[in-house]
Amino acid sequence: MGKTLAINAGSSSLKWQLYAMPEETVLAKGLIERIGLKNSAITVKYAQQVDKKVIDIHTHTEAVKQLMNDLKTFKLIDDFNEITGVGHRVVAGGELFKESTLITSEVLQQIKSISNLAPLHNPANAQGIEAFLELLPEATAVAVFDTAFHTTLPEKAYRYPIPNKYYHDYNIRKYGAHGTSHMYVSQEATKYLNKPIEDLKLITCHIGNGVSLSAIKGGKSVDTSMGFTPLAGVMMGTRSGEIDPSIIPYMIENDPELHSAQDVIDLLNTKSGLLGVSEISSDMRDVQNSESEGNKNAALAYELFIDRIQKYIAQYFAVLNGADAVIFTAGIGENGCREREDIINGMDWFGFKIDDEKNKRGCVGNIATADSKVKVLVIPTDEELVIARDVEAFKK
Amino acid sequence: MGKTLAINAGSSSLKWQLYAMPEETVLAKGLIERIGLKNSAITVKYAQQVDKKVIDIHTHTEAVKQLMNDLKTFKLIDDFNEITGVGHRVVAGGELFKESTLITSEVLQQIKSISNLAPLHNPANAQGIEAFLELLPEATAVAVFDTAFHTTLPEKAYRYPIPNKYYHDYNIRKYGAHGTSHMYVSQEATKYLNKPIEDLKLITCHIGNGVSLSAIKGGKSVDTSMGFTPLAGVMMGTRSGEIDPSIIPYMIENDPELHSAQDVIDLLNTKSGLLGVSEISSDMRDVQNSESEGNKNAALAYELFIDRIQKYIAQYFAVLNGADAVIFTAGIGENGCREREDIINGMDWFGFKIDDEKNKRGCVGNIATADSKVKVLVIPTDEELVIARDVEAFKK
Repeated sequence: MGKTLAINAGSSSLKWQLYAMPEETVLAKGLIERIGLKNSAITVKYAQQVDKKVIDIHTHTEAVKQLMNDLKTFKLIDDFNEITGVGHRVVAGGELFKESTLITSEVLQQIKSISNLAPLHNPANAQGIEAFLELLPEATAVAVFDTAFHTTLPEKAYRYPIPNKYYHDYNIRKYGAHGTSHMYVSQEATKYLNKPIEDLKLITCHIGNGVSLSAIKGGKSVDTSMGFTPLAGVMMGTRSGEIDPSIIPYMIENDPELHSAQDVIDLLNTKSGLLGVSEISSDMRDVQNSESEGNKNAALAYELFIDRIQKYIAQYFAVLNGADAVIFTAGIGENGCREREDIINGMDWFGFKIDDEKNKRGCVGNIATADSKVKVLVIPTDEELVIARDVEAFKK
Repeated sequence: MGKTLAINAGSSSLKWQLYAMPEETVLAKGLIERIGLKNSAITVKYAQQVDKKVIDIHTHTEAVKQLMNDLKTFKLIDDFNEITGVGHRVVAGGELFKESTLITSEVLQQIKSISNLAPLHNPANAQGIEAFLELLPEATAVAVFDTAFHTTLPEKAYRYPIPNKYYHDYNIRKYGAHGTSHMYVSQEATKYLNKPIEDLKLITCHIGNGVSLSAIKGGKSVDTSMGFTPLAGVMMGTRSGEIDPSIIPYMIENDPELHSAQDVIDLLNTKSGLLGVSEISSDMRDVQNSESEGNKNAALAYELFIDRIQKYIAQYFAVLNGADAVIFTAGIGENGCREREDIINGMDWFGFKIDDEKNKRGCVGNIATADSKVKVLVIPTDEELVIARDVEAFKK
């Protein structure tokens, strides 16, 4: 069925991955950074080669042209028409989009119309879509929403205990995020659990620079830790996760550098989490290195990080009333051997325990001990593949 | 050792209870409301009698004089000197007060100095203290702090994932609340569990109009749901509990009635929770009545309320890595037969189940089934008795 591009457009970046479909083979991937700024950085990786260059790229349309020309230059395609599908990650689908959707001009308008739910992301996603529509008008274009998987949340999970008008008139509710990742790893989990997804209760932990957890019952998301925005839930690389809301006016009143609620939210999004407490880095590896050198702030940051994840895993045991497996994915989830051990073994009352050897070997699949009642799975996530597959479904 | 008054002074109220100590007999109790307003309301209850009157009471000092004269009038005392102790509930003890403290002029200054942590409460508490110091200078005066029991929280529980300077320079951390209640019921629990408190892991649920939960290990609070202020944690009568902090600037930007972060916090404190979602009442009984008449908002409010409490109970199973008992106390905790059943039986994977008959009979003590691995206790709280006892300890 030809070649498909999976696209993740940010406000000044364009991340892409090229698949041969339906074989699901990754042919190439790349990143264009600093779009609209001087010295845009362009990276293309293919067949174990890496090409890097610096050019001024002024708009997303220029970025898409550059990318398409690079594909030709590196002989990844001979003609633009070989790209028969383009899938776009869209951060906020609000209550409008419950699944991946073929892009029409109406859909594009709707994506723009809910930009208030993701003011930094949706406009950029829309720019990416428009650039491709212009250059590849014949390709099947599909929007894949980060929130779609969580539209199955029951009302008690997605509503906040605030006056109803804020839901009805202002759309304030839990939307969640990382939906394609939670969906993908929960489906992959069936390979290790000998049960159909309909019969499974799963707790998925997407632990990267952003962190979110989901409770998944019968293949459907029934709760998730991110909320109205990705600030909510657990502590992350630079985000605080949940805090007492009263802290916000208190900070404004007391810290002369903070002038508005938005100032505080910016601080909670970009200067908090691991970075704020460790005072070292938002990267867990740096934090642990610093901790091993005796840095007390780094040690505290690590402790807080583990504590908040444990609390959400436990919550989802209540939401699901038990679980078959806890699944770790994304950067730290897939590689954080010590984190997995500290999280799971620190709450082994729940009926699971890490097999030291399996955990350290870094194998994919079950890393729990043989007598563990609840399985502990490590499953690499692949959001791009989900996007490519969703495009493929529309090509048929 | 004479008679002791337990005092809870609010900004326009004075609640009191008179004990014969060390017998711990309640001789009388009462309430003075609308201090500083027209038509202050005065209630005195003693020996199954109730006296109510309306007089203008202008200050806390006048309120204390009124109370003392009432005690004489109703022959509860013959002379002021019979009151040998006065215990004052103080809402915020900050990091200064780790236990109940004999009041000196320095202590009084310190209580005032941390008023920023409880701007509505500490100044009122201080006024109550000053009024009694004036009228009963010889009595043993003791401050009993709502936060003291939680000063044993480990750093990972009390610190927020925000830049460290907000803790070091601005004292932003989790202080918790309802400390005397959590302490009292956890100590009472030993009567039903045949183990010394040192060996017990307990989860205490203080569920009244305000709601907080605590994880208690070996008699010490190791985590609690209220935070920097009592807004944090679970949903309550009029409070939201935790929400995505990003909602605050979003509300300010979108709702023309909200002008500042403080406006939003006021709304989250006074118009949210059961009241905001049910649109009926902050009182659970009204919400349930309305629900039984088919009101959908009331049904949702109830569901959210139960969901949030279950999530905190589960969290504390992780914090404690298992628990011996979950304890219910305060208005709804002691009387909410349906709430207890829905909370516990909805998460029976955790190893507990309610005995229907015991639960409905409203007995004090264990209401779990015989085969329940984790006990479920109902224990009426008695914060006034804790205050009277703490005063007694200083009289000796």
